[in-house]
Amino acid sequence: MEFTQLISTQEVARHNNPSDCWIVIDDQVWDVTAFAPEHPGGANLLLKYAGQDATKEYAEFHAPSIVKDNLALECFKGNLDRSTIDENWKREPVAANNTQAAPESEKPELHNIINSYDFEEVAARTASKKAFAFYSTAATDCWTRDMNNSMYKRIWFRPRVMRDVAEVDTSGSMLGIPLRVPLFICPTGLAKMINPEGEKALARAAKSTGILEVISTVSSHPHADILREAPDYPFLFQLYVNKDRAKAAELIQHATALGVRAIFLTVDAAGRGKRESDERIKVDEVVINPVTGQRAANDKKGGGLTRTMGSYIDQSMSWKDIAWIRSLTDVPIVLKGITNAEDAKLAMQHKVAGILVSNHGGRNLDFSPPAILVLLELHKRCPEVFDAMEVYVDGGIRRGGDILKALCLGAKAVGVGRPFLYALNYGTEGAEHLVEILKDEMESVMKLIGIKSLDEVHPGLVNTFDVDHLVPSTPDHPYAKWRPKARI
Amino acid sequence: MEFTQLISTQEVARHNNPSDCWIVIDDQVWDVTAFAPEHPGGANLLLKYAGQDATKEYAEFHAPSIVKDNLALECFKGNLDRSTIDENWKREPVAANNTQAAPESEKPELHNIINSYDFEEVAARTASKKAFAFYSTAATDCWTRDMNNSMYKRIWFRPRVMRDVAEVDTSGSMLGIPLRVPLFICPTGLAKMINPEGEKALARAAKSTGILEVISTVSSHPHADILREAPDYPFLFQLYVNKDRAKAAELIQHATALGVRAIFLTVDAAGRGKRESDERIKVDEVVINPVTGQRAANDKKGGGLTRTMGSYIDQSMSWKDIAWIRSLTDVPIVLKGITNAEDAKLAMQHKVAGILVSNHGGRNLDFSPPAILVLLELHKRCPEVFDAMEVYVDGGIRRGGDILKALCLGAKAVGVGRPFLYALNYGTEGAEHLVEILKDEMESVMKLIGIKSLDEVHPGLVNTFDVDHLVPSTPDHPYAKWRPKARI
Amino acid sequence: MEFTQLISTQEVARHNNPSDCWIVIDDQVWDVTAFAPEHPGGANLLLKYAGQDATKEYAEFHAPSIVKDNLALECFKGNLDRSTIDENWKREPVAANNTQAAPESEKPELHNIINSYDFEEVAARTASKKAFAFYSTAATDCWTRDMNNSMYKRIWFRPRVMRDVAEVDTSGSMLGIPLRVPLFICPTGLAKMINPEGEKALARAAKSTGILEVISTVSSHPHADILREAPDYPFLFQLYVNKDRAKAAELIQHATALGVRAIFLTVDAAGRGKRESDERIKVDEVVINPVTGQRAANDKKGGGLTRTMGSYIDQSMSWKDIAWIRSLTDVPIVLKGITNAEDAKLAMQHKVAGILVSNHGGRNLDFSPPAILVLLELHKRCPEVFDAMEVYVDGGIRRGGDILKALCLGAKAVGVGRPFLYALNYGTEGAEHLVEILKDEMESVMKLIGIKSLDEVHPGLVNTFDVDHLVPSTPDHPYAKWRPKARI
Amino acid sequence: MEFTQLISTQEVARHNNPSDCWIVIDDQVWDVTAFAPEHPGGANLLLKYAGQDATKEYAEFHAPSIVKDNLALECFKGNLDRSTIDENWKREPVAANNTQAAPESEKPELHNIINSYDFEEVAARTASKKAFAFYSTAATDCWTRDMNNSMYKRIWFRPRVMRDVAEVDTSGSMLGIPLRVPLFICPTGLAKMINPEGEKALARAAKSTGILEVISTVSSHPHADILREAPDYPFLFQLYVNKDRAKAAELIQHATALGVRAIFLTVDAAGRGKRESDERIKVDEVVINPVTGQRAANDKKGGGLTRTMGSYIDQSMSWKDIAWIRSLTDVPIVLKGITNAEDAKLAMQHKVAGILVSNHGGRNLDFSPPAILVLLELHKRCPEVFDAMEVYVDGGIRRGGDILKALCLGAKAVGVGRPFLYALNYGTEGAEHLVEILKDEMESVMKLIGIKSLDEVHPGLVNTFDVDHLVPSTPDHPYAKWRPKARI
Repeated sequence: MEFTQLISTQEVARHNNPSDCWIVIDDQVWDVTAFAPEHPGGANLLLKYAGQDATKEYAEFHAPSIVKDNLALECFKGNLDRSTIDENWKREPVAANNTQAAPESEKPELHNIINSYDFEEVAARTASKKAFAFYSTAATDCWTRDMNNSMYKRIWFRPRVMRDVAEVDTSGSMLGIPLRVPLFICPTGLAKMINPEGEKALARAAKSTGILEVISTVSSHPHADILREAPDYPFLFQLYVNKDRAKAAELIQHATALGVRAIFLTVDAAGRGKRESDERIKVDEVVINPVTGQRAANDKKGGGLTRTMGSYIDQSMSWKDIAWIRSLTDVPIVLKGITNAEDAKLAMQHKVAGILVSNHGGRNLDFSPPAILVLLELHKRCPEVFDAMEVYVDGGIRRGGDILKALCLGAKAVGVGRPFLYALNYGTEGAEHLVEILKDEMESVMKLIGIKSLDEVHPGLVNTFDVDHLVPSTPDHPYAKWRPKARI
Repeated sequence: MEFTQLISTQEVARHNNPSDCWIVIDDQVWDVTAFAPEHPGGANLLLKYAGQDATKEYAEFHAPSIVKDNLALECFKGNLDRSTIDENWKREPVAANNTQAAPESEKPELHNIINSYDFEEVAARTASKKAFAFYSTAATDCWTRDMNNSMYKRIWFRPRVMRDVAEVDTSGSMLGIPLRVPLFICPTGLAKMINPEGEKALARAAKSTGILEVISTVSSHPHADILREAPDYPFLFQLYVNKDRAKAAELIQHATALGVRAIFLTVDAAGRGKRESDERIKVDEVVINPVTGQRAANDKKGGGLTRTMGSYIDQSMSWKDIAWIRSLTDVPIVLKGITNAEDAKLAMQHKVAGILVSNHGGRNLDFSPPAILVLLELHKRCPEVFDAMEVYVDGGIRRGGDILKALCLGAKAVGVGRPFLYALNYGTEGAEHLVEILKDEMESVMKLIGIKSLDEVHPGLVNTFDVDHLVPSTPDHPYAKWRPKARI
Repeated sequence: MEFTQLISTQEVARHNNPSDCWIVIDDQVWDVTAFAPEHPGGANLLLKYAGQDATKEYAEFHAPSIVKDNLALECFKGNLDRSTIDENWKREPVAANNTQAAPESEKPELHNIINSYDFEEVAARTASKKAFAFYSTAATDCWTRDMNNSMYKRIWFRPRVMRDVAEVDTSGSMLGIPLRVPLFICPTGLAKMINPEGEKALARAAKSTGILEVISTVSSHPHADILREAPDYPFLFQLYVNKDRAKAAELIQHATALGVRAIFLTVDAAGRGKRESDERIKVDEVVINPVTGQRAANDKKGGGLTRTMGSYIDQSMSWKDIAWIRSLTDVPIVLKGITNAEDAKLAMQHKVAGILVSNHGGRNLDFSPPAILVLLELHKRCPEVFDAMEVYVDGGIRRGGDILKALCLGAKAVGVGRPFLYALNYGTEGAEHLVEILKDEMESVMKLIGIKSLDEVHPGLVNTFDVDHLVPSTPDHPYAKWRPKARI
Repeated sequence: MEFTQLISTQEVARHNNPSDCWIVIDDQVWDVTAFAPEHPGGANLLLKYAGQDATKEYAEFHAPSIVKDNLALECFKGNLDRSTIDENWKREPVAANNTQAAPESEKPELHNIINSYDFEEVAARTASKKAFAFYSTAATDCWTRDMNNSMYKRIWFRPRVMRDVAEVDTSGSMLGIPLRVPLFICPTGLAKMINPEGEKALARAAKSTGILEVISTVSSHPHADILREAPDYPFLFQLYVNKDRAKAAELIQHATALGVRAIFLTVDAAGRGKRESDERIKVDEVVINPVTGQRAANDKKGGGLTRTMGSYIDQSMSWKDIAWIRSLTDVPIVLKGITNAEDAKLAMQHKVAGILVSNHGGRNLDFSPPAILVLLELHKRCPEVFDAMEVYVDGGIRRGGDILKALCLGAKAVGVGRPFLYALNYGTEGAEHLVEILKDEMESVMKLIGIKSLDEVHPGLVNTFDVDHLVPSTPDHPYAKWRPKARI
């Protein structure tokens, strides 16, 4: 090896594109231009390191000898001249790579996806780092996100047998809109990050499968464009109230004009969740507002899209603002983000059409209560709300069985969020596949617990003993009655 | 490496059998015909990749240099011509391999198996992928399957000392049939997948060890053939009611004519469990009905034998059908699949001979209650059933100590399923060994808790405090009394 | 490599001793005679494979290239002739190796051992496989063994501050015998397996540290020899009653004559625990009875020393036998193995001097109650026993803090078993070091909970809320009152 | 390799410094003098093994071939002459290395640190082994240390929505001193180990961020020097009472003269915690008392700084000593280390200004109660203390959310210890960054639970049901009323 050529880092850095691609592995410089298209891990993975040092990532996936075995000798260009290493060379691969997805060929075929977790697993591998980080992240320790799901696992069924269940019917409704499955796609921003069709693809899937889509204020396609994908089909609209109330009013009237069937007013975003995975993945040039063209950028606190996107939300919103919204639209209002019996009662007193029991997928306040437990709290403390308005729930639902548990505990319909984003990795067809999977699972569970229609659900079909001790029965702390005196 | 021969994938594919076997590893083509019989992992493992690329599986088991070290140079045939790679080449090794078991020599000798878990571990390694997947799988998240067993681990003994236990007696009975051990082999289909003798081998073992076999409607040997293995010995029969009631009647009469001593009517299969490990393993050409010759096939949802096999089961069966069965036979009826006190009481009112508390090994409804907890529910809510009929339990029993716990909590006998299939890996002798292991463990426990015969078991010998809070005491939810209104 | 010599397995097998030692790694035959003494893992590890194939174990510890890097070329003898592989060659290294300990040099120096877990960790690495398996094993799933310890971790202190604790005193007593620390060494057999001095070394340590040793019926040194190590020092004696009552009487009278201060009559060995680690390690030629010279051997159930050793124990022993023992000796009797309030009350009624609350270290009945919880049961159900007799406890005690917890909950003294065996790895000095470690830890805890002497312990100093729900308050099951009818 | 030079260990050992550095890897001797500055792991890691055998540590980080690939052939000096290996050679790298930190370049830039755990993770990698061991360690099993934090994770929020929270205010106070955040830096010794500026850097950060520093009796800078960093800014002083009461008095008067605003009298150090990680890392020459110049040294029990440092503390201190301290100073007294309602009540009766509920970070008594649970105990048993004096809490606080939970449960302010030491790895700026992170997190939580100022906190904002069963409601054990009789 003494007589091989020494090559400077600056020289290597010049060969940084698909048609002229050198990489460095263990201080050896290789020309992989010809090899890249054949790379088992996909060309993209190699091209990410064009003109750079790939030793570290290489070592994660390959045994040391593979380069030499796979590449013709003429691909070896020489040894790296280590004396030319400078700050540029040492830098991590550029952030732009965080927004590149893996090529299509790395995804398993859709029919191999047999449950919602499969979609997540594939997205983790094949979506861009930034997209997956933004979708999967939650506030601080992600406790609430994880408990949302694990609390469903602590609730069992109490099945009944020997009932004629040859035909079961999963149909339900929301606000009088009949649904094939009482299921809605939770509003999310930046759906485009995983698929250019974004919310438009979801709109088509909602229509074809008979469920509803809740369009986000910050959808990555213009609202009208989304609705245009499913003309005459009902849509719901999620509303963040802008600090600039004129703009807020304009948005409400715009949504009304579009004909949305309900406004889901988000009430749990008065603070911005600290979503650390999102912060840690640096990002450049992601358009986060399709209307204004606002772009994300890194700052001293990280690369969090959350912070950038949420800056316009009015944190001074209060109960009186419901009247204000009513003054602007006749569309029914649903409050999204209720996690407390007191607030559920206030919602009822304000005569809204419904509440969505939700902790924002754990993305805003970590250690807010797991969503399904809030339903139990409502049963304990204000069961009247279930008759006064429709109650929905989202957060942690991953199985048809989870949906049944929520319905048994009083939910009129349930929302599913992240799984639809992960399914969107496969476009409209992916989202449709997800609905059919959940519907199949629901049918199986309905038969096995002994019911034929969702009219028959009731709390006696589930065993919640493993979690009942966690459910408050009073507005106060059970024994700590102390109140602080004024400060200083 | 520049002057080695390039070999097309099509050429490689031709050398695809034991007497002419080439494989590709890291793009190098090797003739392993002579080496295969000496392969430390067994010839089969190599032959699975005859004429194919084995790089991936190879890398799971071997360091890269081993091929070169183990094979003579003349075994090296040349480099793969990567330009000839086509769709055929990229395909996974054919599904048929999923049904091949490891050779006998890979199994430890039977006397090295000292508990039921050993049988499972050996089966996981040496049974065909498909057989192990089908046997071990359960519905969706496998929560109930796993809890069946772990709940036994949360129940302790309350041992008594200084009692004369020099001689202990494990004998018991079912429906008046005296048994050396109050144990029965749960009905399962496809026993042949792990051993060609299947249920016939189990029949011989049941007789020789003094326990009972419950023959499945979908046994992999004809029912009469199984009984013929143990003439004059009592058998039990598990019944799935066919949608085609004429066929169902015929089957009941056939079983009656065969002289079975009880019909275990399965009541927990009104829906089909979603068994994902089973779906994920593709399969071709497994005969799932020895009478009709029906074969399994892959479809868009996967390769699940469960779905294919269960399609004829009548999902409209109800309590009135018990009278219908009684009109066809005088054989005592036991309901298999009760998990709820209400249903146990209904069973008692319908004067069946017994119930088998069971959640189908967790294979149908995930999050149905762990079996042993259902026994506790019966004690809390309808202890009269224990005197009115015989109560059996299955699901999660892996130790003689588990059997004692179930008997203390009122079971007249217990069923063991998967462990017998895993033991069947060693034929009749394996199943016999399993019974003796369990009997030995029972005797040890009986002495150490201070009883000489199973007449002395009672609930006071176990401590269930760790799980008691999970057991319902009312038919309704304890505090959620809400009921849904009609839909829309 | 084509021209290297082929060597038969039979030839290799001849070079099987320290002065002529060949081994095979990856089918290459090496002469390691000269290298063995320098082997970083110790010569023994290499010599275990003298004349055998060491590929597998080698791969666990070494990277593939190390042989070639470490050995001179002349050490390479040739390639293994694989055609000569026969059954002898395939066999596992002989069982005799299971009884070899690692050389002294592999043990860290004693002053580096700073807690009881360190002793265990060193023993796991350096004692013979069989010794460690026999000492560490417990019945079936080892649940009780592990819970013995983990239940201590679920009990907290309730420390008090600002009390003068400049001087603390750990002294206590058993049966009127003053002790520097209220601690005794539990009786165990086969102590010699880890150190030839066995129970004799423990006797010296007991005397020098001011604690007591309980000598086992099956001690590996003759009882008289052990007592001779500490003349005039008090000893306790553990008794297994022989089925041959004449021999039993002889043993009781022998112990009485030796002057032991109490007989610990084992009452929890009416059945033999199934100790699976012990069974799995094959063994030959271990002397298990120093008097008769009885040797252990493998049989069809495995290589369990437990089974072989326990065969003479009388399983018909009952409460009336206490009177029989009293007819033979005036030495106070303590019942070892009480885990139930009923039995504690019976013991009290039989006026024994004390009871040792113990589940035999989890070695006999798995799922017998964790020892410290039994103390809580006695408080709930028969607190009078603490005043009527002395109550001791063993099982799971690994820290000075554990000892304090047991004393707070009413133990007069505590037993420690396995840790003394592990400490014996360092002889008398090791056992002394263990006592001093525990005493140091006790003193630290005493000061920090605010007590100066063990007279001040009481249950109010510990918080047991995390485990209180597990403690029975009635002799029966709390809600399952059913009793079985007679069989058949 | 037969003709390479053999080099003695003694020769190698001579090349033991940065300008002449040889190391041995796999018995090959290499000159790494020129390479060290380029070493990817930093020069220091290599230089630690100057003149020594680095095989073991090398193998932890590198594949075997890397040396040869990275070093020019002339760097190879020959093979180690193994016959020259002696005791000196076998010794572990000298303890002095335990006190070397990694070079600055290995730390990520400060803006990449986004939570307190990041600081810990970086310190674990880059602080000296001894510093990290001393800071992170706790008593024996570290149970209390870990539970301090995990109990916060078992307490949830009960958030309220639709309240105007556009502006939130984190300000609070201690003893009338207004604070930007009600947060103080816990007193710790040896802060200098991670940063030469030690407590002086913390003093500057306290002032600039508007929180308080509690200066330790054993601070690594002289007390006056620390105060000088922030003239006119309030400080608190932690007091260990010296056995030599004259010296204790002198210290109290010295602190009084310095103008500290409160004396935090440590009451939970009557015994010395056994901190095992600290003991296991050998140390030489760490100055542990800047006044006396006392140095740490290893002894037979290990290298624990704790034992060496704590030897002068008066273990006979009692409640009457509060009057004695009052006789020496008018500065308010706070008792640090209360974990029991009885002691809290005694503190109130002794009219101290406050108590710090603390278990010394789990460093003294393992299994003392998790700090946040003690607050719950005070609510249950003596809520009057919250009005009679200020109550602080420390231990396990890692998030702004943890701070809010503590404040809701009655804490007037909270202490954070280890995280400030880890942040000190980045000097004053690091500590400031930590405060801002915690303040940001607090603000986010305040908005999301619906409060604008800390006057609004109260126990009803948290759900403690998951831990309430662990909180005592009586001074005694709930059912074990037994008390021991006098000994012997």
